[in-house]
Amino acid sequence: MNVLVINAGSSSLKYQLLDTTTKKVYAKGNCERIGIDGSFIGHEENDGGKQKLEVALPDHKTAIKHVFDILAEAGFDTDKIEGIGHRVVQGGWYFPESKVVTDETLGWVREVAPLAPLHNYAEADVIEICRDMFPSIGNVIVADTSFHYNMPEKAWRYALPRDVVDKLHIRKYGAHGTSHRYIWKTTSEFLNGDVHKLVSCHLGSGASLSAIEDGHDMDTTMGLTPLDGLIMGTRCGTIDPATVCYLQRVGGYSVDEVDTMMNKQSGLLAVSGVSSDSRDIEAGAHNGDANCQMALDMFYYRTSQLIAEMAQSMHGFDTMVFTAGIGENSAEMRLGVAKELEWLGVKIDEKANEVRSDEPCVISTEDSKVKVLVVPTNEELMIALDVEALLG
Amino acid sequence: MNVLVINAGSSSLKYQLLDTTTKKVYAKGNCERIGIDGSFIGHEENDGGKQKLEVALPDHKTAIKHVFDILAEAGFDTDKIEGIGHRVVQGGWYFPESKVVTDETLGWVREVAPLAPLHNYAEADVIEICRDMFPSIGNVIVADTSFHYNMPEKAWRYALPRDVVDKLHIRKYGAHGTSHRYIWKTTSEFLNGDVHKLVSCHLGSGASLSAIEDGHDMDTTMGLTPLDGLIMGTRCGTIDPATVCYLQRVGGYSVDEVDTMMNKQSGLLAVSGVSSDSRDIEAGAHNGDANCQMALDMFYYRTSQLIAEMAQSMHGFDTMVFTAGIGENSAEMRLGVAKELEWLGVKIDEKANEVRSDEPCVISTEDSKVKVLVVPTNEELMIALDVEALLG
Repeated sequence: MNVLVINAGSSSLKYQLLDTTTKKVYAKGNCERIGIDGSFIGHEENDGGKQKLEVALPDHKTAIKHVFDILAEAGFDTDKIEGIGHRVVQGGWYFPESKVVTDETLGWVREVAPLAPLHNYAEADVIEICRDMFPSIGNVIVADTSFHYNMPEKAWRYALPRDVVDKLHIRKYGAHGTSHRYIWKTTSEFLNGDVHKLVSCHLGSGASLSAIEDGHDMDTTMGLTPLDGLIMGTRCGTIDPATVCYLQRVGGYSVDEVDTMMNKQSGLLAVSGVSSDSRDIEAGAHNGDANCQMALDMFYYRTSQLIAEMAQSMHGFDTMVFTAGIGENSAEMRLGVAKELEWLGVKIDEKANEVRSDEPCVISTEDSKVKVLVVPTNEELMIALDVEALLG
Repeated sequence: MNVLVINAGSSSLKYQLLDTTTKKVYAKGNCERIGIDGSFIGHEENDGGKQKLEVALPDHKTAIKHVFDILAEAGFDTDKIEGIGHRVVQGGWYFPESKVVTDETLGWVREVAPLAPLHNYAEADVIEICRDMFPSIGNVIVADTSFHYNMPEKAWRYALPRDVVDKLHIRKYGAHGTSHRYIWKTTSEFLNGDVHKLVSCHLGSGASLSAIEDGHDMDTTMGLTPLDGLIMGTRCGTIDPATVCYLQRVGGYSVDEVDTMMNKQSGLLAVSGVSSDSRDIEAGAHNGDANCQMALDMFYYRTSQLIAEMAQSMHGFDTMVFTAGIGENSAEMRLGVAKELEWLGVKIDEKANEVRSDEPCVISTEDSKVKVLVVPTNEELMIALDVEALLG
């Protein structure tokens, strides 16, 4: 089945056209600076062709029109596209699994939008535009929170007043669920089912862990929002929630300023003082920059503590997977995290760890109690497979 | 040395007179509702004598006068009191250890008060009153944060912008440090030094863990304030800090309302819907109340996850101690937490666990990889010993 996967942000729109059977990606690209001066589309095709189109993108509707035009030029007329999968950041309490777009399900994306206002409204608009412009193509909503929805109540419930959490739908929702689900599926296939308690480490500029027992999510590190948990590129991760009150009361910041500070100006960027990109920080640390070294130390420390938490939620772990930007590409940071976990039976084969591959690889030693792998994630394929399952 | 230990809150003042050599408590009591109608002093003596004095306590100065009068009546004239130890909740960046009161150190208590406004101002006032009224008696400041001050930077630093954390002195300070220090000292003595990596579990209506390696604090669960970490009687513990922003923006609460909600209306009280007292919750759960059972389940779950975090910070643990209200008195809740940790080598002797004693007791089995003890805490004795060390 040929599926177009769309991932819309407030000023961007990523797309990928792929075949669910062959897993071949025909084309992919990114519309950037939608609604802002200097907008363009970066487009890539399977045969290596690349182009950058500098076009006015006043709104998402214009962006989608251009995407379908580019795909038609590349030989993929609209009638060859058999389904569209939409990544939705926040599914709230309506999407324990992916769902076909209807008036009702589209309404749900907007209803839960206060939980992720920067994303859900734009995503709902894009879904509506696709339905209107191409009524013959079915649309599917794949929420990034779905995989975590049925975690045990003791893991998702916050100890805040019940009337407040009920009314405002406050709980741990998590994120990266599509990636964690893909990691479970792929690892389980790769190991022929010999995996039961998996800690999935999605380490990118956004980063989260998921504790997965026999395919079920038991806990995750992100919370009500994707701010919580690990130290990330620009996000502070878990800190005393009273810090938010203190920053407002004593620091004089507004609530929006604190929110922006915690999400955009914190994390590895704030500690290193150099960059949110782990490659720059590794380079800085190699050059003797103490702040960069502290950023790495804190990343290893907090990541290993939260891996221990995830393992605790399953009373142990037999498998650990690194994925996403840092997890797939930084041998140094994988080793930094894994070394902290030796007391729990994690032993890395440092030579195997140096490998870079598009396929799953084991990087632990033969005698490691916990099997450690690098598995490239593929959220687009996971979304496309959901589209196929619901529309195919 | 006869030491008077004072622990002042905004409307209360606890006191205890004890001998550091014999560890005998001569007298103790609590002035309640200071500055509020219906104030009284509950006083107890070593010989079993008890009294409740209903007296007007318009301010802390009046309360202290009454305390010294009561002690004089009981045979302890002012000249028999050789030192006063003051518990200060927040020592900020000035008290890596206890210090004798001078104009300078007293000024520090006030300087760091924005970090704990409800406590530090009252405590500073009380210290000043004692100096003025009894100039011949030396005063010592014992801060509840001192023990945590020298934990590794990767544990105390928050990944927020460096200019902000520097200016506003934001970091993990922790609390219950006097108790955790006492637990290390007592456990080490009791086990003849055969303890290296200890997780100290101070579980009361306020609750925190401390990871202590060879006497040094390596990490703790409370943060900038005592809100963070474990689920407590009325405190929510760790939650996504963005929840505070969401409650303000979508819920319409003010920052003070959110602060009060998280500190006073959350935790076991909020989940159980019954009480902040673990005894009521245990009783409710036994009677089949599902919300009480969820409160216990969440307490066991989060406490065990954070114990795993503390163990991770030391790359293992050989000893775990339960102390404070719940830790010393609830065999059921000790067992509930410990059972979650079996995969890490914790094995409780259920019969030994039933014991209640004023002395340290081992409650793990002979073959438990981790030795588990119940050790009654004694913050007043720890404070008095600091007074003796500095003034004796």
